[in-house]
Amino acid sequence: MNAAVPFPLDLPELDFEAAGGTRIRRSILPGGIRILSESVPGARSATIGFWVAVGSRDEYLAESAVSGQGSTHFLEHLLFKGTPSRSALDIAVAFDAVGGDSNAMTAKEFTCYYAKVRDQDVPMAIGVLADMFTNSVIDDSEFETERGVILEELSHAADDPGDVAGNALFESVFGTHPLGRPVGGTPETIEQTTRSGVWDHYRHHYRPDELVISVAGAVDHDDLIDLVNQSLEGAQWRLDPEATPVARRSLGAGTFSGTRRLQTIARPIEQVHLMLGMPGLVASDPDRVIVSMLNAILGGGMSSRLFTEIRERRGLAYSVYSFAGAHSDAGMQGMYAACSPRNAAEVAQLMQAELQKLADVPVSDEELARAYGQLSGRAALSLEDSDVRMSLLGRAEITLGEYLDLDENLRRLASVTAADIATMAARLVAQPQSIVAVGAVDDDLFANVVTNKE
Amino acid sequence: MNAAVPFPLDLPELDFEAAGGTRIRRSILPGGIRILSESVPGARSATIGFWVAVGSRDEYLAESAVSGQGSTHFLEHLLFKGTPSRSALDIAVAFDAVGGDSNAMTAKEFTCYYAKVRDQDVPMAIGVLADMFTNSVIDDSEFETERGVILEELSHAADDPGDVAGNALFESVFGTHPLGRPVGGTPETIEQTTRSGVWDHYRHHYRPDELVISVAGAVDHDDLIDLVNQSLEGAQWRLDPEATPVARRSLGAGTFSGTRRLQTIARPIEQVHLMLGMPGLVASDPDRVIVSMLNAILGGGMSSRLFTEIRERRGLAYSVYSFAGAHSDAGMQGMYAACSPRNAAEVAQLMQAELQKLADVPVSDEELARAYGQLSGRAALSLEDSDVRMSLLGRAEITLGEYLDLDENLRRLASVTAADIATMAARLVAQPQSIVAVGAVDDDLFANVVTNKE
Repeated sequence: MNAAVPFPLDLPELDFEAAGGTRIRRSILPGGIRILSESVPGARSATIGFWVAVGSRDEYLAESAVSGQGSTHFLEHLLFKGTPSRSALDIAVAFDAVGGDSNAMTAKEFTCYYAKVRDQDVPMAIGVLADMFTNSVIDDSEFETERGVILEELSHAADDPGDVAGNALFESVFGTHPLGRPVGGTPETIEQTTRSGVWDHYRHHYRPDELVISVAGAVDHDDLIDLVNQSLEGAQWRLDPEATPVARRSLGAGTFSGTRRLQTIARPIEQVHLMLGMPGLVASDPDRVIVSMLNAILGGGMSSRLFTEIRERRGLAYSVYSFAGAHSDAGMQGMYAACSPRNAAEVAQLMQAELQKLADVPVSDEELARAYGQLSGRAALSLEDSDVRMSLLGRAEITLGEYLDLDENLRRLASVTAADIATMAARLVAQPQSIVAVGAVDDDLFANVVTNKE
Repeated sequence: MNAAVPFPLDLPELDFEAAGGTRIRRSILPGGIRILSESVPGARSATIGFWVAVGSRDEYLAESAVSGQGSTHFLEHLLFKGTPSRSALDIAVAFDAVGGDSNAMTAKEFTCYYAKVRDQDVPMAIGVLADMFTNSVIDDSEFETERGVILEELSHAADDPGDVAGNALFESVFGTHPLGRPVGGTPETIEQTTRSGVWDHYRHHYRPDELVISVAGAVDHDDLIDLVNQSLEGAQWRLDPEATPVARRSLGAGTFSGTRRLQTIARPIEQVHLMLGMPGLVASDPDRVIVSMLNAILGGGMSSRLFTEIRERRGLAYSVYSFAGAHSDAGMQGMYAACSPRNAAEVAQLMQAELQKLADVPVSDEELARAYGQLSGRAALSLEDSDVRMSLLGRAEITLGEYLDLDENLRRLASVTAADIATMAARLVAQPQSIVAVGAVDDDLFANVVTNKE
């Protein structure tokens, strides 16, 4: 079957069979808590995610606001530091003792706490994640110790030239838009973050009607509801039986126009980490499927055009690829390569030329078929991991409110034509372009590389 | 069932059921080619590996030898560059067109070419890998282009302070032993590598009696044998029906004694990448199971002693762990942390103290049980990936010649006692210890950190 299943916020129950014979169910519990499950026949493990649609973009920078830059990520760390009934060590021991894989990720538009465990350990994982999510104490002294850990994490990223380039590209392309800020904040903002600011952030956002729980793998939906209900008994949450989930983030076209900017960041290292980027498509744009096909052809594998031109024919780089990122009201199209400083200008020009070529000359039927084969094969392989299914389910719920199963995704990919890709490439080429280079380079090196159409 | 299955080189066929209901079979084909499969019920994909027990340690440095430092890894790259019937692009297209994941790894004692694909694509993957392995042309001009790619790969590693520290630790601990050299060579040796040297290396080592093919997932052993036979028809290999596999690398205790050395490598970066290492156990040592338990307790998870002392209590590092590596005649026990220069000496002392504590005070029953739970849970989760099963099967064949299934591994882990761990820790503490620090540090910073027992 082809399934594009809507997740309306006012409809409590959904139950359908998805591609490959998995069963997807969704319920809304009292308090507006959303629970989604994908039961995979034969699975022996499961991945559990606790989500809130709150990310770094939601941090206010004004002094009067509840939180400062980097506090969403700071809070993510603190949730592992203890509740009234579990110390930080207890939480760590709970997952370690069963060999579970537990972690969290803070993104620009959401935060997710997750654990992958064997089937027998699912009740434990839900219990611990629910306790962390609802009952964090955010102890003063733990707060100060964790500040040091986060500063080390930021130092690690500052020493990674690829990370530095990525953050700089977001800043260049998105400018003053909140999506332009780094997820983790800066050492300065982390030094200034207060326990009370993070506490307010926690109380303000970690509420029943913001919570989305998605589970994939060896899971039964009714059991899951029971487990969540039991786990929330200790939460002292007032679960209003009439409550509905909070409205989703509003979707729409971006209001920013991007910048034409060259940003070189000097570092005494051997390689230059080079990124080109421009405004791309927002998450709700139906043409994102075209962008997926475009990137498979442009920079998605060992046979992609960037790989062939830059690595295989010329030997200029070891790592080279293209990518797209989509958020509720903004998106980015980008390209990346790491190369010698002496080749950086040439590599930048080759990147520009390859995107331009996609706009000028329609791709062949063979390339189109190969891109479809690549994306469909990768999707099928990736769905073997319950982590991937858990993540797709959670994101569908908090971003678009619609879930596409594999068959529906393939149907949409197959509908993309060569003309669609040329039109999309032309649209991207016409956007203001930013170039970021981190390494032993300066602006002069790129004198002959023009950011487009100035 | 508990299964420790020997893979004798003179016994052509083996067939047994392993833990979890998988079926493991092994055959020796004409020419001495070894084929191993693990059929996993319900799997929809498979991972295929082509192995040779030839790694960077087997490179001779004398001028008269067949290969220079880094040529094993260079050869690995070149196998993707074409055969008489497939160009480099054809090879890339073959895997990309089905969304397969194809790559290779060169290690100190082996090289492996692998692909993960859907069940329907297994015949293609075997055909392409067999062609790459047996018919590489190693074209002159492709050779020169790939030299550039490899130099970029080395530059990338040189810019990664964790990689730099790891290579330096091997050099410090193993000294002039061939395992002390970096896998990829150095820019100098890569500049000097000749096409004829790599060609000789290829012809000398990539032979039927050196080849091991391991496949796990959706695979039938008899079909696999047919596929391999068909694929090798174009190989112009003389497959002697009487041939047996070449003898395995001889196993034994190391002949090196390690060094007490402090090595600081100055880099203008924010963090110090700190590693402590000492000679550890060889691959054939039955006590390696004790080392596994020791490292789970010392630095294997969020509840481990290093994580608790260095990150959770003191906030000195974001990343900290311990590890063990085992080779045929040498092994290493190590610890890693990245931290601020001002804390580097303290972190080094904390690492030393935690290892010493394991030698001085027996671990509690609770910690022992937790370590067992962690390793058994992780093993069960990791076996969901056909890549992991393929790799375990291939390594068992080329290193020890014995395969342990999950039940047998668990039985051995469960047999480890607190006294075993204390004895092992004492044995490791008594080894000469090397310290490596990469970052804004110098030797003086470590004046109060003594490499042990000088």
